[in-house]
Amino acid sequence: MSRIRFALAQLNPIVGDVTGNSLSIVAAVSDSYARGARVIVTPEMSITGYPVDDLASSTDFIRQSEAGVTSLATRLASDGFGDAVVVVGYLAEAAQAEFGGARAHNSLAVLHDGRVIASYAKRHLPNYSVFDEERVFVPGDGTLVLDLGGVTTGFLICEDLWRSDGPVTELAAKNLDAVVIINASPFDTGKDDTRFPLLATRAAEFGATVVYVNAVGGQDDLVFDGDSAVLDITGSTVLRAARFESALELIDIAGNGTSSDGIALTEPTDDITPFIGDDLPDIEATWQALVLGVRDYVTKNGFPSIALGLSGGIDSAVCAVIAADAIGASRVFGVSMPSKYSSDGSKDDARALAETVGCHYDVQPIAELVTPFETQLGLTGVAAENIQARARGMILMALSNQHGHLILTTGNKSEVAVGYSTMYGDTVGGFAPLKDVFKTLVWDLARWRNASAESRGEAPPIPVNSITKPPSAELRPDQTDQDSLPPYDVLDAILDHLVSRRDSIESVVAAGFDRATVERIAGLIAGSEWKRRQGAIGPRISRMAFGRERRLPITVRHTPGLG
Amino acid sequence: MSRIRFALAQLNPIVGDVTGNSLSIVAAVSDSYARGARVIVTPEMSITGYPVDDLASSTDFIRQSEAGVTSLATRLASDGFGDAVVVVGYLAEAAQAEFGGARAHNSLAVLHDGRVIASYAKRHLPNYSVFDEERVFVPGDGTLVLDLGGVTTGFLICEDLWRSDGPVTELAAKNLDAVVIINASPFDTGKDDTRFPLLATRAAEFGATVVYVNAVGGQDDLVFDGDSAVLDITGSTVLRAARFESALELIDIAGNGTSSDGIALTEPTDDITPFIGDDLPDIEATWQALVLGVRDYVTKNGFPSIALGLSGGIDSAVCAVIAADAIGASRVFGVSMPSKYSSDGSKDDARALAETVGCHYDVQPIAELVTPFETQLGLTGVAAENIQARARGMILMALSNQHGHLILTTGNKSEVAVGYSTMYGDTVGGFAPLKDVFKTLVWDLARWRNASAESRGEAPPIPVNSITKPPSAELRPDQTDQDSLPPYDVLDAILDHLVSRRDSIESVVAAGFDRATVERIAGLIAGSEWKRRQGAIGPRISRMAFGRERRLPITVRHTPGLG
Repeated sequence: MSRIRFALAQLNPIVGDVTGNSLSIVAAVSDSYARGARVIVTPEMSITGYPVDDLASSTDFIRQSEAGVTSLATRLASDGFGDAVVVVGYLAEAAQAEFGGARAHNSLAVLHDGRVIASYAKRHLPNYSVFDEERVFVPGDGTLVLDLGGVTTGFLICEDLWRSDGPVTELAAKNLDAVVIINASPFDTGKDDTRFPLLATRAAEFGATVVYVNAVGGQDDLVFDGDSAVLDITGSTVLRAARFESALELIDIAGNGTSSDGIALTEPTDDITPFIGDDLPDIEATWQALVLGVRDYVTKNGFPSIALGLSGGIDSAVCAVIAADAIGASRVFGVSMPSKYSSDGSKDDARALAETVGCHYDVQPIAELVTPFETQLGLTGVAAENIQARARGMILMALSNQHGHLILTTGNKSEVAVGYSTMYGDTVGGFAPLKDVFKTLVWDLARWRNASAESRGEAPPIPVNSITKPPSAELRPDQTDQDSLPPYDVLDAILDHLVSRRDSIESVVAAGFDRATVERIAGLIAGSEWKRRQGAIGPRISRMAFGRERRLPITVRHTPGLG
Repeated sequence: MSRIRFALAQLNPIVGDVTGNSLSIVAAVSDSYARGARVIVTPEMSITGYPVDDLASSTDFIRQSEAGVTSLATRLASDGFGDAVVVVGYLAEAAQAEFGGARAHNSLAVLHDGRVIASYAKRHLPNYSVFDEERVFVPGDGTLVLDLGGVTTGFLICEDLWRSDGPVTELAAKNLDAVVIINASPFDTGKDDTRFPLLATRAAEFGATVVYVNAVGGQDDLVFDGDSAVLDITGSTVLRAARFESALELIDIAGNGTSSDGIALTEPTDDITPFIGDDLPDIEATWQALVLGVRDYVTKNGFPSIALGLSGGIDSAVCAVIAADAIGASRVFGVSMPSKYSSDGSKDDARALAETVGCHYDVQPIAELVTPFETQLGLTGVAAENIQARARGMILMALSNQHGHLILTTGNKSEVAVGYSTMYGDTVGGFAPLKDVFKTLVWDLARWRNASAESRGEAPPIPVNSITKPPSAELRPDQTDQDSLPPYDVLDAILDHLVSRRDSIESVVAAGFDRATVERIAGLIAGSEWKRRQGAIGPRISRMAFGRERRLPITVRHTPGLG
């Protein structure tokens, strides 16, 4: 029997930043080595970041990734950590390119003694949902098992774990003490409820401890939630890292003796109690995912600050609080842009929000900007309404040009689904925090965030009036969203069927919804695809987000056939 | 020996329009049957249109496609064509869904006698370039060979032909008279120069006549050029349909006798001379592809008209002529939107263009629209420059809202590559004809189109001054594009390396370009990815178009590693 200390380095890489990502690994190794760890595991593609998309076909980038791994091995040895085992994920050139251009593996390298002593290429490549891995990677073959100081350890990469055929079956046939799985597994609400049962099932199949290390952080539209964990052979969670933040957690794993070609590792001399983080309620996890998505988009892209329009409505209020939670209120600039149709209540609510949040606040009325357009072009109806939204977009973009702000687009998923927005008006901006959040969930998040503040003795940041009043775009007198759309509880239920579950119109009608309404909503969804194609990205929190997860034509005409 | 008349129905389906697409097939069958054809071949996915993207995972749409095929078989029989063989492409439910959700085949059905007598599922699924077929389709297995009135015929679908393994090898081992390939193969400049040699090679390998039927038409960002053809066993082209338009071409193919289970077909009683269309010079093919892309986006989406800004520059001039060629000048609305920086020359060139083209022409000065923004917000520098472009975008969108125009975005590929544009300003619009056309090619197209007009005795539509003057955004006094960018011949050469060929910075420098310039351009390309994500779609004419063909992260930081 041996006992080896493993470290789970839940890191937050930046795509392309081989230097920065390598330095994060060095820091994690240094820290955990000092605490007795001799096997340090980092996430899938920890050298390159994930997803790299078509960078995987760049000869230059593959070379950088491979050189990064060998440099890291050298660096770790020269820093005095050569006797540890460090597991990293990287892009590795494949022996043969595939028809069409994929030329690299999504690989894992085991570093020891200043060099790469073993590697493994991911075998199951997800090519559905948000993933395009068959496009960019060549699948590997074979399995990797190493004796790490007496702990006989198998290795897998992310999707390999989710499918029962291939590497899972092959590892299950071996006599293993542990299976290490490195991952860049994106968050969606409730993901932990599928992830942990799967880990427990696999632990039983392997008859081994499973060490699951996931990335954390926002990368464009994806949020990685961490939630790295160790489950023992009975399926019990014996370590669980914090979610939505970088973490470095240690655990000792027992092995059944050293084989003749095993890697000698120093056993720890003390005892540790592994951290077991709390489960988060879905609503809190969703909020944290949105905050992390915004924070990392801002910081990884180097924006000094965020600006957004504050209408007094619920969407902009929630966005402002997310922004303040992400980067601090002092870096958030709210702009009220009232028109002649803006109610006093809306203006009050916008100001009250800014005061409670503590962000910057400016008022830029649009009347004198809009009138020249209306007069010169003789605008009426929708054209006149849209000019107001577009004047607001121009103001925000001008402020961005002058001050470098990232502009947040405040529209929610219900609006994005049916195209209830003015192109180049309220759609302007680089990042849309609520893009994957249905309106009814926006309200839930607002209530949860207020209650959360109250439970900490803080003032609830979102004005109650913004939560309770009927939603309105305020582009004409007494307008409400429900002039154009069904009530949001009905709309969101229909959208859940048509968008999230891809149900047919017939089945939604069979579920009890009004046929004319369902057909109208389906038409609005299809007809606004061109708007979505030009929309800002935003953090994915569902299993059917608009964007890379749902690829549909703009030009489409649904007809049933001749029958 | 037998002789059977084949028809190549080069159709232009609309994605989703099972009824309309089926009626087009009925019309093609009716027409060619009357002229003696008894085997009528339509393109890949002729029932559903192509590409269907994630519609392929819709149970509803699969059902519609399958019902559409059986209804079509019934309809053809009831119309008196039951004794003919009709080959269609469609979406067919797979026996088993794949992990991740693909649940349908990209299939071919052979209709005869009022029913589907045989089918074949595409085996090689392209998942590179603009294709995502491994995402949405389940690959088939096996081959299909039928005796069609004594003509022993094998069947393939598009990508199957391009790879030498699998179905090509299996069919080559059989004793065939003909191989029918149905395709939805998108155009890129020079595609015919790879397509025809491949067809000749395959004809020799099969020892059979190859019957290649391609779709035609624009579908969002893809243009299908038709170019359907028949090559005999020696590789000679014995039939070639017109490109960039629907066509129905006939040819008689000889067979070596009827097998016992062959399909009896009536032989023709007359002789025909198959059509052999001319090869098109690349520049002319490119122009036609742009025109077809615009025309089909307008007509398939039901726009009554097109509007675009006319600056007097080359890009908007070329777009206006493409628009007029696509849908007629009477449906094109040009808008001159001069500022205080617009030269008299520019205004004259815009008006001259509109007069020659014969499109509608309106002048909307922006001075009085811009001043209130500058004054209220205290704008200077880039923020003030961009307000001008955004005011123009607001004018165009207001006209679209009032009249239903499709707005064309006039930016070219060189600008799109480096982000030389004002977001929500000159980028507004639903379709970008020049999105895949580098600036130097825009000039070439302008010269070609003028020369082409002159050769027909028409007035050259594009003012010479628009072609010869230095390009300028005219957002400040005496501005030219070359204040910010290298000369376009240099820029386009660098972009060809970095974008089209995905060359590394080192290799571009090695090719003789200035390192600082190359690094600056590479930085501009990476830094403007967020703009491209929000840009309008436009017709793909190259082998590396922005959009679905080039998938790169917005958040990215390139560093070489620790080494």
